Amino acid sequence: MTIAMDRDALNAFLARDFPQVAGSYRVESVGPEGLVARLVVDEGHLRPGGTVSGPSMFALADLAIYCAILSRIGPVGLAVTTSASIDFMRKPVAGVDLLAECRVLKLGRVLAVADALIHSEGLDEPVARCSMTYSIPPK
Amino acid sequence: MTIAMDRDALNAFLARDFPQVAGSYRVESVGPEGLVARLVVDEGHLRPGGTVSGPSMFALADLAIYCAILSRIGPVGLAVTTSASIDFMRKPVAGVDLLAECRVLKLGRVLAVADALIHSEGLDEPVARCSMTYSIPPK
Amino acid sequence: MTIAMDRDALNAFLARDFPQVAGSYRVESVGPEGLVARLVVDEGHLRPGGTVSGPSMFALADLAIYCAILSRIGPVGLAVTTSASIDFMRKPVAGVDLLAECRVLKLGRVLAVADALIHSEGLDEPVARCSMTYSIPPK
Amino acid sequence: MTIAMDRDALNAFLARDFPQVAGSYRVESVGPEGLVARLVVDEGHLRPGGTVSGPSMFALADLAIYCAILSRIGPVGLAVTTSASIDFMRKPVAGVDLLAECRVLKLGRVLAVADALIHSEGLDEPVARCSMTYSIPPK
Repeated sequence: MTIAMDRDALNAFLARDFPQVAGSYRVESVGPEGLVARLVVDEGHLRPGGTVSGPSMFALADLAIYCAILSRIGPVGLAVTTSASIDFMRKPVAGVDLLAECRVLKLGRVLAVADALIHSEGLDEPVARCSMTYSIPPK
Repeated sequence: MTIAMDRDALNAFLARDFPQVAGSYRVESVGPEGLVARLVVDEGHLRPGGTVSGPSMFALADLAIYCAILSRIGPVGLAVTTSASIDFMRKPVAGVDLLAECRVLKLGRVLAVADALIHSEGLDEPVARCSMTYSIPPK
Repeated sequence: MTIAMDRDALNAFLARDFPQVAGSYRVESVGPEGLVARLVVDEGHLRPGGTVSGPSMFALADLAIYCAILSRIGPVGLAVTTSASIDFMRKPVAGVDLLAECRVLKLGRVLAVADALIHSEGLDEPVARCSMTYSIPPK
Repeated sequence: MTIAMDRDALNAFLARDFPQVAGSYRVESVGPEGLVARLVVDEGHLRPGGTVSGPSMFALADLAIYCAILSRIGPVGLAVTTSASIDFMRKPVAGVDLLAECRVLKLGRVLAVADALIHSEGLDEPVARCSMTYSIPPK
């Protein structure tokens, strides 16, 4: 397996192409075993009670999986999510960042499939799992 | 079928309990056939190219389905999404609000299931479909 | 919308290409509004308690959606399901056939998306909902 | 983690309560890291071209996840699948058994969530992934 984009290349790509989200999300590590991305939790991500909202977790999984695919195929700006499924399993810990651990399960010519487990930093039990299919544009 | 909360009651509930999102999302109509919610699209929802981001569409579906369930059971603040599946089918039209049309398929004692079709205002073809399960807390 | 294969053409296609399942599943109607398929319930589809098994409902949805796509594009034997999501909402009535009502939501060059509601014949409330993405091979 | 039912107990449970499927599916191993189940492929599971059908893979994932939950909570016959999502990623190898490797991600009082990777025996790359939610009846 070749790494086409490493952590720094992915974070630079996010900062340039996704300035709206680049402050909240960043890639922590990239390796053969997968990619880890972080949601830096702030007020905007919270729901009543202080836990991170479902859409913020969805956004984290989406970004982590997108970056995991780019880490393998390089900076393809037009890859788009075609379908996603997510299970919310536990309440995230209030005021703690979330980490998504992502693995690429299929990297085809047209479709890529990956999944992610999300957990509150410092805790093992996952708060959510997500799987997504991305459509990769022809070169 | 009884309507436990109408459009105005739902919008008032959102404004009070979800102030972070109440500016962007609002309930348009509630009836026996279902609920329609609107995403008032602004810069924060966009991706490169000017289309609405996937997470923003997920958030719209989540809010529409949540309100559709509340319209039937009343203001239960602790109902939570347990699982969701979403298909992104077309690019939303740039700069146009999105509408989610939602129907409740099951309203059980513990779980509720609903789905939603999302389309750009003024266009028939759906840009996304979504189904979600909500867990309803015991009274 | 053009109907490329009608009910009889679809049932003949199933009998020829899917002899293992053609006895249990058949297309009831095809029209602009969608397709209806039937599962003729027998012992092999049941679980303890006499209700139809989850995998049998999944198979019904898969076949209904496949036929709904073929009704629009003609007999493409190599269209394959790439992803599916299903919610089981109620217990099917024991000893009663199941009907799947299916609508095609997107018919792209490469991917098609459709969903289906399944109910016990004679009852309105759905026992399951399903959405699927099919990959369509290049001509 | 306690193992409430081991491999032999699970296979005996299947043989008694699910005689229709017990010939095709069996539990291979149960451990703290998860459960592995096998689909003994025969003619009835095949589609044109000799590959295992999607519904047969769904049935394998369903059974593997059901058994993984029972391995933790004991023989609860009334646990039911409430939702499932599956991605079909590669063609299974013709004439080769399928193995599902399953892990329990959440074991709550009311809901359990697990996922599974399915591959053709002897090959590493997964042919499908599946996640499911089960509803557990009150004791």
